[in-house]
Amino acid sequence: MTAGRSMARQGSETRERIVQAALATLREEGFAGTTARAIARHGGFNQALIFYHFGSVPGLLLEAFRSMSSEQVARYRAAAGEVSSLSDLVGIARRLHDEDLRSGAITAVTQLMAAASGPEEGRPILDRFDEWISLVQEALGRAVGGPLAAVVPAREAAYAIAAMFLGIELLTRLDPERSEAGAVFDMMASMARLIEQFTPSMSLEDPAAGSPATP
Amino acid sequence: MTAGRSMARQGSETRERIVQAALATLREEGFAGTTARAIARHGGFNQALIFYHFGSVPGLLLEAFRSMSSEQVARYRAAAGEVSSLSDLVGIARRLHDEDLRSGAITAVTQLMAAASGPEEGRPILDRFDEWISLVQEALGRAVGGPLAAVVPAREAAYAIAAMFLGIELLTRLDPERSEAGAVFDMMASMARLIEQFTPSMSLEDPAAGSPATP
Repeated sequence: MTAGRSMARQGSETRERIVQAALATLREEGFAGTTARAIARHGGFNQALIFYHFGSVPGLLLEAFRSMSSEQVARYRAAAGEVSSLSDLVGIARRLHDEDLRSGAITAVTQLMAAASGPEEGRPILDRFDEWISLVQEALGRAVGGPLAAVVPAREAAYAIAAMFLGIELLTRLDPERSEAGAVFDMMASMARLIEQFTPSMSLEDPAAGSPATP
Repeated sequence: MTAGRSMARQGSETRERIVQAALATLREEGFAGTTARAIARHGGFNQALIFYHFGSVPGLLLEAFRSMSSEQVARYRAAAGEVSSLSDLVGIARRLHDEDLRSGAITAVTQLMAAASGPEEGRPILDRFDEWISLVQEALGRAVGGPLAAVVPAREAAYAIAAMFLGIELLTRLDPERSEAGAVFDMMASMARLIEQFTPSMSLEDPAAGSPATP
């Protein structure tokens, strides 16, 4: 029925509008300021709509994280598919960080994580964040050659890298002007080049690949 | 005057009691649940005392972070002074993580960081966190020998390690049972041993130190 379809579409547009208002509020007011009242004011709607569509403010924020994360993971999955070296991977991390400085998307995630009051609220956030860890793990698999892959377990390395990224976003947001993220990415780019230079000489599978690096 | 001293002591005891109640509330209720009312209930005092002594709940939480952080930095500075290898450093990080699982102290910090609504609130937290970065940097200086120190800038490495630690605490708290922190520390311990094994062969200053590693 046309009326039913139209109502469903209207409902989904309303939900999307509420989700966008929640993200904007989180970015601009911080978690403590993200109340139903503030979200409603940002979006120009009645706060009763939040409870009607999402049950609660934490329910809404989780949905906001889901929607934001899916969109980003899809976008970065394409970029990760083209990674062929550690340097590429560092380049992607830097780009993601720069984008986040503007959009505040990951920053909103760290706030949501910090605000989760226990495993009931934590688990669904973790389920979603797991997609990011998997994405890093895939990219790492493409970036890291045989010998290094044999000594560094990919899942743990991906978890550590994703954790570091979260920590950097958390620190950057405290005072963007004092952020040392740029210098950290520069260091990682140098280290990536160094590892790429030394790895051939450590090769177990293919002793012919690359001449031993001379210090 | 005795009466004056006694009142001052009483004031400082009251402040300490409020700080402890705030930390306990943050650990048990999460940031969103850490209201003046909840803190007062935890500590068994009137919530007006919070405003009298600290001006506001964020003011109290910042003071709580200061007090907690100073005590911890002092304790870990002693441990960091005995670091003589990367393996030692990983061991300290693991110990700090294990302690935090019980005390929730760093977890409280990540919540405070995530909740800061802008640079005004962010800067004093960052000032205090800087002590942790410096501590890691000192330990790293003791742990890392000549050749590696020449390619890896200590400040940036310390910032990256401290950020990773924050991220791990943030992820662990979401669901302690699903935490992969243990596996990450195992990986870092293996990598530390590997670097310790390969570093002598990379040495620039002292070509005689250690025989080249044979792959």
